[in-house]
Amino acid sequence: MNLYDPFVPQLINTLGQALQWLSKARVLAEQKKFDIDVLLAARLAPDQYPLVRQFQILSDGAKFTAARLAGVTPPVFEDNEKTIEEVRVRLEKTIAWLKTLEPAQFEGADTRTVTLPFAPGKGLKGIDFLARLGLPNFYFHATTAYAILRHNGVDVGKMDFLGEVPFFDV
Amino acid sequence: MNLYDPFVPQLINTLGQALQWLSKARVLAEQKKFDIDVLLAARLAPDQYPLVRQFQILSDGAKFTAARLAGVTPPVFEDNEKTIEEVRVRLEKTIAWLKTLEPAQFEGADTRTVTLPFAPGKGLKGIDFLARLGLPNFYFHATTAYAILRHNGVDVGKMDFLGEVPFFDV
Repeated sequence: MNLYDPFVPQLINTLGQALQWLSKARVLAEQKKFDIDVLLAARLAPDQYPLVRQFQILSDGAKFTAARLAGVTPPVFEDNEKTIEEVRVRLEKTIAWLKTLEPAQFEGADTRTVTLPFAPGKGLKGIDFLARLGLPNFYFHATTAYAILRHNGVDVGKMDFLGEVPFFDV
Repeated sequence: MNLYDPFVPQLINTLGQALQWLSKARVLAEQKKFDIDVLLAARLAPDQYPLVRQFQILSDGAKFTAARLAGVTPPVFEDNEKTIEEVRVRLEKTIAWLKTLEPAQFEGADTRTVTLPFAPGKGLKGIDFLARLGLPNFYFHATTAYAILRHNGVDVGKMDFLGEVPFFDV
């Protein structure tokens, strides 16, 4: 099976939904008249990464999951975002790069051996990398970012998380 | 591609990790001398489901994702848990049922049309149901349950979320 479809479109979909959460955060900030950028430091526990880092790791999670399966070197994104607008740009750049990928690059990805810089001497079969590390990690950070915003009163719900689901008529 | 492996083992892995979070919650409750069952009502926003409901939906999410792909009718679990121990039993029953499934039941699941009671007249290709609805919804509730516990001081971290990742030596 070629892992490009539906897994890469779904990474793009979720990142696009994260942009929607930022738009809803702006609505709240304007309504309550606070500086939206205070949200960057928001976290659910003192030893948890704050919101800005959740979005950076989310961006990297999507990027590296796709890159490792495709066997390509992705662009470097400096983790230097200081405003919600810069986080927006980070997510948009990630989506734009994912959109340059093509299914042909993913042929054989399911059985390819993926190695990781933080696990020297170890490998994962491509499909196991996707299903047992890449996707859970990506959704962990997506949901954590969402939860921090939700906890701070941003008007987001399940449909804002799921985004587009490709139903057809039966 | 047969969707059983690695996706069903990964559902089982994540539910097993949820059991670990409950064990860690018990450690905290004993340390701080509070009734562990107060955590069932914990939530991150007043209009969000509380922890007990997050675990019920997590159980259903795993169960229905696997059942719809396999084309089988799963057991009914009443959403009547009133204690953390009952939540534990719910998760264990879910894991036990998932372990009765076999790869042969998933042949053709990737292209099977899945229909859903809440989307009358609509269908999803099996692989799209998995990747664009089943898994994101499952991880959304797993991470939300985790986040509620984390926010309440339970000593859980990323490794407690990911659980077992099937690395091999290279």
